[in-house]
Amino acid sequence: MATIRAELASVTLGAVEIVLPFGTRLTQQNGFLHAGIITSILDSACGYAALSVAPENAEVLSVEFKVNLLAPAVGESFIARAQVKRAGRTLTVCTADAFALNQGNEKLVATVQSTIMNMIPQP
Amino acid sequence: MATIRAELASVTLGAVEIVLPFGTRLTQQNGFLHAGIITSILDSACGYAALSVAPENAEVLSVEFKVNLLAPAVGESFIARAQVKRAGRTLTVCTADAFALNQGNEKLVATVQSTIMNMIPQP
Amino acid sequence: MATIRAELASVTLGAVEIVLPFGTRLTQQNGFLHAGIITSILDSACGYAALSVAPENAEVLSVEFKVNLLAPAVGESFIARAQVKRAGRTLTVCTADAFALNQGNEKLVATVQSTIMNMIPQP
Amino acid sequence: MATIRAELASVTLGAVEIVLPFGTRLTQQNGFLHAGIITSILDSACGYAALSVAPENAEVLSVEFKVNLLAPAVGESFIARAQVKRAGRTLTVCTADAFALNQGNEKLVATVQSTIMNMIPQP
Repeated sequence: MATIRAELASVTLGAVEIVLPFGTRLTQQNGFLHAGIITSILDSACGYAALSVAPENAEVLSVEFKVNLLAPAVGESFIARAQVKRAGRTLTVCTADAFALNQGNEKLVATVQSTIMNMIPQP
Repeated sequence: MATIRAELASVTLGAVEIVLPFGTRLTQQNGFLHAGIITSILDSACGYAALSVAPENAEVLSVEFKVNLLAPAVGESFIARAQVKRAGRTLTVCTADAFALNQGNEKLVATVQSTIMNMIPQP
Repeated sequence: MATIRAELASVTLGAVEIVLPFGTRLTQQNGFLHAGIITSILDSACGYAALSVAPENAEVLSVEFKVNLLAPAVGESFIARAQVKRAGRTLTVCTADAFALNQGNEKLVATVQSTIMNMIPQP
Repeated sequence: MATIRAELASVTLGAVEIVLPFGTRLTQQNGFLHAGIITSILDSACGYAALSVAPENAEVLSVEFKVNLLAPAVGESFIARAQVKRAGRTLTVCTADAFALNQGNEKLVATVQSTIMNMIPQP
């Protein structure tokens, strides 16, 4: 997250926003953000959303996710919004959307559905 | 759909509801609906949602879907609600949730993200 | 499984075959097997494969799966072959392929990647 | 690919290997490769495998993929191996595995199933 200068913009119980701010060097010369970066911020957003509803001492680990790449990731900045669909004792399921921002307009560029595991340290 | 007595309860542009009514014989003796049935109504709901935004003469075909099974499908009836996330010329991406209904309460039991292809007959 | 007359044809450690024999009434009038049935035998094959490597007293539960529908499921009979990719303490990941059989030839019709949870009864 | 110094190690019809060589700076301080990087080389391997069977003038585009993260990506180097499961006119379905290499041993760390679209330039 620090490497790509992504920032947690909002955290509430079960919902997280991550912003990838202006001026990033992650875009390719054509101005597209690499799918791996979009996927990473979606995965991170889901992880933080799951963590927001996890037991207090738990860490979280992505088990799997499925991403649909919907449009070229062209934008001045990007935002990933994750929501918890269901929080279980062991597993949490989240969805997240990634948007490209251009002159104040948002465009949906990718969407993910993911499964996250709570890792609770053994005493 | 007819076999399992599922019914299209609502169709608007990009959003569809399918209901599996009371009295179904699809439940196992423990009252659970088989995951294959839940998956089928979610897949059908996504297909109809995609069809609702497809070109007029197009048919639709499920390319793939990913389903998370969130809770035992125990209920008097079931409802699947699908929404189009993005409609393209060739491919449409949908999400859908399945709920179990018990005494007026809805419980989320499964969620799906799917890709559907428009099949346009060649002249 | 009994309802659709599917049968476990082979079980070894981490690999399972399920066969849907001749004469099934599950085909539609055009001879296609419904995607929900193909998905069900793939899901079942993955479940049994996971069970074959699970701790002795564990039951298994499908957490999620992703299926690609590759070709129309037209055949005299069908076979699903599942393999365990990784067996963990809590989660097992499997892949499975479904084939249609026609006059001795196999054709790949669907493929799945799934996550299964071990449910270990508490003492 | 160039940014992370990944290299196409092998390309045959329908099968591709990508290697992420020694000395990469992509690992975190604990020696783990970030899931986003593993996912990127799996996605790239699937893209090249699809391209190897695509019509001559086609380009390829990832429609969607689903990844299971199976073990911490700790290794001296990493290899992604992709295979085409089915090549269609419009869509190709691939699977790929990522392995960590340590002192000559391979360990499976992630597996992906993906859908790729052929983009054929209009005359």
